[in-house]
Amino acid sequence: MEVIDGNRIASEIVAELKAEVSQLRGRRPCIALVRVGEDPASVSYVKKKGQVASEIGIESRILLPPVTIAQGGLEGLVADLNADAGVDGILVQSPLPGALDERAVFRRIAPEKDVDGFSPVNLGKLVQEDETGFCACTPAGIMELLARSGVRLEGRHVVVLGRSLIVGKPAGLLAVQKRAGANATVTLCHSKTANLAAITRQADVLIAAIGRAEFVTADMVKPGAVVIDVGINRVADPSRKSGHRLVGDVHFASVAPLASKITPVPGGVGPMTVAMLMKNTIKAFRLRTGGAAGPR
Amino acid sequence: MEVIDGNRIASEIVAELKAEVSQLRGRRPCIALVRVGEDPASVSYVKKKGQVASEIGIESRILLPPVTIAQGGLEGLVADLNADAGVDGILVQSPLPGALDERAVFRRIAPEKDVDGFSPVNLGKLVQEDETGFCACTPAGIMELLARSGVRLEGRHVVVLGRSLIVGKPAGLLAVQKRAGANATVTLCHSKTANLAAITRQADVLIAAIGRAEFVTADMVKPGAVVIDVGINRVADPSRKSGHRLVGDVHFASVAPLASKITPVPGGVGPMTVAMLMKNTIKAFRLRTGGAAGPR
Repeated sequence: MEVIDGNRIASEIVAELKAEVSQLRGRRPCIALVRVGEDPASVSYVKKKGQVASEIGIESRILLPPVTIAQGGLEGLVADLNADAGVDGILVQSPLPGALDERAVFRRIAPEKDVDGFSPVNLGKLVQEDETGFCACTPAGIMELLARSGVRLEGRHVVVLGRSLIVGKPAGLLAVQKRAGANATVTLCHSKTANLAAITRQADVLIAAIGRAEFVTADMVKPGAVVIDVGINRVADPSRKSGHRLVGDVHFASVAPLASKITPVPGGVGPMTVAMLMKNTIKAFRLRTGGAAGPR
Repeated sequence: MEVIDGNRIASEIVAELKAEVSQLRGRRPCIALVRVGEDPASVSYVKKKGQVASEIGIESRILLPPVTIAQGGLEGLVADLNADAGVDGILVQSPLPGALDERAVFRRIAPEKDVDGFSPVNLGKLVQEDETGFCACTPAGIMELLARSGVRLEGRHVVVLGRSLIVGKPAGLLAVQKRAGANATVTLCHSKTANLAAITRQADVLIAAIGRAEFVTADMVKPGAVVIDVGINRVADPSRKSGHRLVGDVHFASVAPLASKITPVPGGVGPMTVAMLMKNTIKAFRLRTGGAAGPR
């Protein structure tokens, strides 16, 4: 059994992107990071994204409108960023404070700057296998983790547990694409699935993205399967100073001995998400500047 | 075993839509049907669509630009239809003659008039389960056939054979949606799938959309399954005056005795597609006119 090291693979990608950006002429790629309010996880994520951008040589602009900003004001800010020729990617950190309509804000982001891949146009391009679109960063990171861990998908059975818009559905749509590195048979299962364990036990690759702590147990996994754990759940742990610890959607201790490869939580899928956001930002830069600004 | 009568169900829907349109005030809903060239199947399809529209009380405008029309000319014609306030839906009949870029033409159709549901925005809305989008007519017709035949999907296993943009993927995306009438576990399989029969044999509902004549045989079907045959394949038949007959993707004679319900070819899914196109056209009319033009 091999534990897939997401931190190491994400670092590799960051190093590659840094080398790529160093070859670019003219201005740097630029991502705008918009955060509203002081949710501790959001503060930490935006900080991390800014740090990784800086490491790669991507300019980041962090915008912190007041938590009292009105819906129209926030949408206006997005419109300004859409119109700003110096901005390649726009990320509005989720979740927004309760009074704001997050989906309406996301819909405002121009598709060609939607590096989070949440807009209908980019989801549609994912279905169409149109390479000019942007794929959501977590599923894109899963595909990259699998490819760089030597997991071949062609003809194999990928079972995705969870049908969310952010992970489950796009992960399934990526794995089933008609191209090298994909071509998997894909099953999407979820809270309504009957005989769930009988289905997950068929997975050559099991992607758990259901948001329930340690939900996937040994009886649900075929010996030799590759297990990708997308969950990040906080559970009480009085033995820790913080009073809690993070666990995935997979019961690691019992599943790991069965698996051929497995991602840990933390340190598996998580670090990949930021790396893929940066990859999307460079892609947006190339598409917007006609791709003529450097090699690749 | 019950043979699902697509003609009867489509007629029911047409009658319902006719009653609905008769309640509308002001102008009629209008669909523009664009056909280029004299492909016999296209001639027949466009004629049928015009007839069904007329029966319902939907205005249809049939546009027949010359087969020599340039790409720019055809895209300009679509742009004119987009701008025409009296047109609710636009259908460009596929396939276009070889020299024309069909995808580029489809991309020109305004999403709010894209009653075929082929644009990235509408595919994205299907992924997002956003009811303001338009779903491709064949998969929407399959869902309607199943619902009106009393087939419940919740928690059951729908296996889709084929991953096309027009049928396989949207059918899977519809069946997995988080709503009453859907909530199925969905497997997408295709030409690269290993152990195909072992997977299709798990289907409570098997949707065959692979485009290969009589490909699905009895050994691939679980006794009691519901079988939906989307294929329309022309095979040689010297005993017929025409020299050919139409068969589906399912070997009907051997599979039908096993199935609890099965669609025939022709007369199964086919007639539903035109009915759903008309349903989408009325939906486009309502969305464009603010839904205030009559009851729902």
